[in-house]
Amino acid sequence: MHFMTALRAAWQRNDSLLCVGLDPDPARFPAHLEHRPDAILEFCTGIVDATADLVCCFKPQIAYFAARRAEDQLEALITHIHAQHPGIPVILDAKRGDIGSTATQYAIEAFERFGADAITVNPYMGRDSVEPYLAYGDKGVILLCRTSNPGGSDLQFLDVGGGERLFECVARLVADEWNASGNCGLVVGATFPKEIACVRELVGDVPLLVPGIGAQGGDIAATVAAGRASDGTGLMINSSRAILYAGSGEGYAADARRVARETRDAINRHR
Amino acid sequence: MHFMTALRAAWQRNDSLLCVGLDPDPARFPAHLEHRPDAILEFCTGIVDATADLVCCFKPQIAYFAARRAEDQLEALITHIHAQHPGIPVILDAKRGDIGSTATQYAIEAFERFGADAITVNPYMGRDSVEPYLAYGDKGVILLCRTSNPGGSDLQFLDVGGGERLFECVARLVADEWNASGNCGLVVGATFPKEIACVRELVGDVPLLVPGIGAQGGDIAATVAAGRASDGTGLMINSSRAILYAGSGEGYAADARRVARETRDAINRHR
Repeated sequence: MHFMTALRAAWQRNDSLLCVGLDPDPARFPAHLEHRPDAILEFCTGIVDATADLVCCFKPQIAYFAARRAEDQLEALITHIHAQHPGIPVILDAKRGDIGSTATQYAIEAFERFGADAITVNPYMGRDSVEPYLAYGDKGVILLCRTSNPGGSDLQFLDVGGGERLFECVARLVADEWNASGNCGLVVGATFPKEIACVRELVGDVPLLVPGIGAQGGDIAATVAAGRASDGTGLMINSSRAILYAGSGEGYAADARRVARETRDAINRHR
Repeated sequence: MHFMTALRAAWQRNDSLLCVGLDPDPARFPAHLEHRPDAILEFCTGIVDATADLVCCFKPQIAYFAARRAEDQLEALITHIHAQHPGIPVILDAKRGDIGSTATQYAIEAFERFGADAITVNPYMGRDSVEPYLAYGDKGVILLCRTSNPGGSDLQFLDVGGGERLFECVARLVADEWNASGNCGLVVGATFPKEIACVRELVGDVPLLVPGIGAQGGDIAATVAAGRASDGTGLMINSSRAILYAGSGEGYAADARRVARETRDAINRHR
């Protein structure tokens, strides 16, 4: 299924703009998972199964798997999501960016090896570094635009002429050129609601992936007010640590479900 | 050993500014390697052993391994280089870029899991996305600046104020701030010799990794003239495909050696 079709259906079916980010850090796992060879997979499937009816998508962050030689567990996790929760799209958060021939290899990694429905991509190297992902047609390509971290301002906030800032230029390139097939999204941090509004103004109803609520300090009400599309959807508001580590005992998945539901409902109160 | 110490020693010992890029594409391997389970490792170690006395560094590109579920072969390859060719630094070409907590995981992947001596990093997310790599101290951190691909101009060439272009701003940030410990380098494409000269002017003797000669069309004489540091070194001039696929038979490694030697010598004629 096309990523955008699945995303729209999940927004409706689960009445949710919440994306649960899967950033598994074994140092924070409940004690009963310690020393299990597939602890990362077990932890993540526990979270996924407890929250799948509350989210519009899941977003595993590949670095947390790669740092622990656990690519096989990432493969198994995405297979599990597709098998057990069909229709919930999976965004591989990889932020890749390279020349076309190499980007082709990264696209194989994300879409064919891991079976992701969408990938995050860094725009610094320009159009031909993005095309191999766009060429898949039914996959989502979510470009970094205005990121939620403090250093995001170092380059993204520079004035590139006529008062346009670099992140706005990226949003405009995506809206005017790269999104010709309707499979692009943009990453805009919740820590900068004014810039979310700028981007929404530039890109129409293009979906925005918004990290930065919870641990990073972004405000839900401001995010929703600034970022919702004309029909009240258009957002994938990501929360990772606040949900994953809501509890630290054997009931961690139930704790995650409680916080995921509270977060979804808090988002919905502002739509 | 500190990446910069190893690089300087290799420049001298091998009288070489050549970096051999390891972008293994099984579709182009010699027939005798077909159907071997560790064909990628065998192909690459053949290239490495045939060229190690002609290079200043090796640069494996992680996407070519990840697309084929061959991270174990990448680990084995870097272990092989360090064991058989001590003193030749290995740059993991990964172009990672993410918020600090995630960058910490990517740094573990590159430096602890794979044992790389340096990594390429995308600067789009700014300073705190680079710090976890810098924190290793003895590892090299090579920031994308002016890339060799056509789309490189889409963002990197934008005027960010006072006639300064985005790639020059990155070079200045590295020279003035991020390189405080002397472990940074920059990627500047051989397809843009005027911009190589701009960057060299901005960063003093900071090493430049220069892809784009050979298959991508960059000129060796212009690259060396524009990019050499005050002592005639300062460059890691990358060639991948022209060396890896110089031959297509059982003698592919000897063919690679011949082209690597010709390329090294062509570079040296212009120093």
